[in-house]
Amino acid sequence: MEDKKSRPGPRPGGRSALVQAAVHRAVRDIQAQGDAQQLTIPVIAGRAGVTPSTIYRRWGTLAELLSDVAVENLRPDRDPEEHGSFRADLIAWIEQYIEEVSSVPGRNMLRTVLAVDKPQNRVQCTTYTLEQVEIIRQRALTRGESVPEGDAILDRLVAPLIYRLLFASEQPDRARIETLVDALLVDG
Amino acid sequence: MEDKKSRPGPRPGGRSALVQAAVHRAVRDIQAQGDAQQLTIPVIAGRAGVTPSTIYRRWGTLAELLSDVAVENLRPDRDPEEHGSFRADLIAWIEQYIEEVSSVPGRNMLRTVLAVDKPQNRVQCTTYTLEQVEIIRQRALTRGESVPEGDAILDRLVAPLIYRLLFASEQPDRARIETLVDALLVDG
Repeated sequence: MEDKKSRPGPRPGGRSALVQAAVHRAVRDIQAQGDAQQLTIPVIAGRAGVTPSTIYRRWGTLAELLSDVAVENLRPDRDPEEHGSFRADLIAWIEQYIEEVSSVPGRNMLRTVLAVDKPQNRVQCTTYTLEQVEIIRQRALTRGESVPEGDAILDRLVAPLIYRLLFASEQPDRARIETLVDALLVDG
Repeated sequence: MEDKKSRPGPRPGGRSALVQAAVHRAVRDIQAQGDAQQLTIPVIAGRAGVTPSTIYRRWGTLAELLSDVAVENLRPDRDPEEHGSFRADLIAWIEQYIEEVSSVPGRNMLRTVLAVDKPQNRVQCTTYTLEQVEIIRQRALTRGESVPEGDAILDRLVAPLIYRLLFASEQPDRARIETLVDALLVDG
């Protein structure tokens, strides 16, 4: 029980957390095998060693369970790279972020999160993004740079790129990213 | 056959268009009854007077058919209102647009469009939006106003509002909309 910070969800290390971990792992294993037909509550339950009714009681529907797993997959697994300036850090981070969410598994994750009306999962995506942006901002502030607010970075950089990825199938190139970042730094 | 412009999809008035219209209508009728359990390909086919295999052949899956119907529902049914200035027209239009897509049926439509990997449907949402924006821009140009590009309006106004609706469950208020519009008008 190394993590005692309060966060939504079950008590870390408790029985409920063990069930969640086993069920999430079962979903990931089945997804890794690439056979979507196998992604059913009975098959997942069998693999996780729990009863189907445990899954129904806790998640309600398969779509909700898949949404939970997708959000967990979207959790960043490392801090943004350091390149010595706010501009360089921000460009490197957003390039990698967009590359990840525009890949086939990335697009599937976003779609799965959006597929159910579970605001807490959708909001979690933005929370992860803001956390990464905050690390980049704090580093820059420590270096004495002046930086825009996190909300402005969401509105002016992340939002247009994600909107066009979702609704225009537009994969941004480096020039497009630099244009958005530079406009943000000027108006900031 | 009043509409001879080339556009994607079946020849207007052809047999294929009649099938499409009947199937779309069947989906809408069943949705209006509010019983999601009835939204299956056999029930839709029965109601539309076609065979289930017609639907499978043409749409592949239920999710694709529902996505097509949702996009059709997102088509604007009237031009943006006129209020005498670009700023007023833009604010009135975006307020109404956001109100529509953040309603329960509006959110369901967006979710249904995003649920399948059919770029043409997702892109169509942006096309409708740009068409409305273009009407507002052209009116303003006729009045001699200088106006930002349509793409800037997507990036600076539509994208942040839709992004936060999807990923932060944030319903914008009038002040937020005015702030975005005014920033857009200053920077152009």
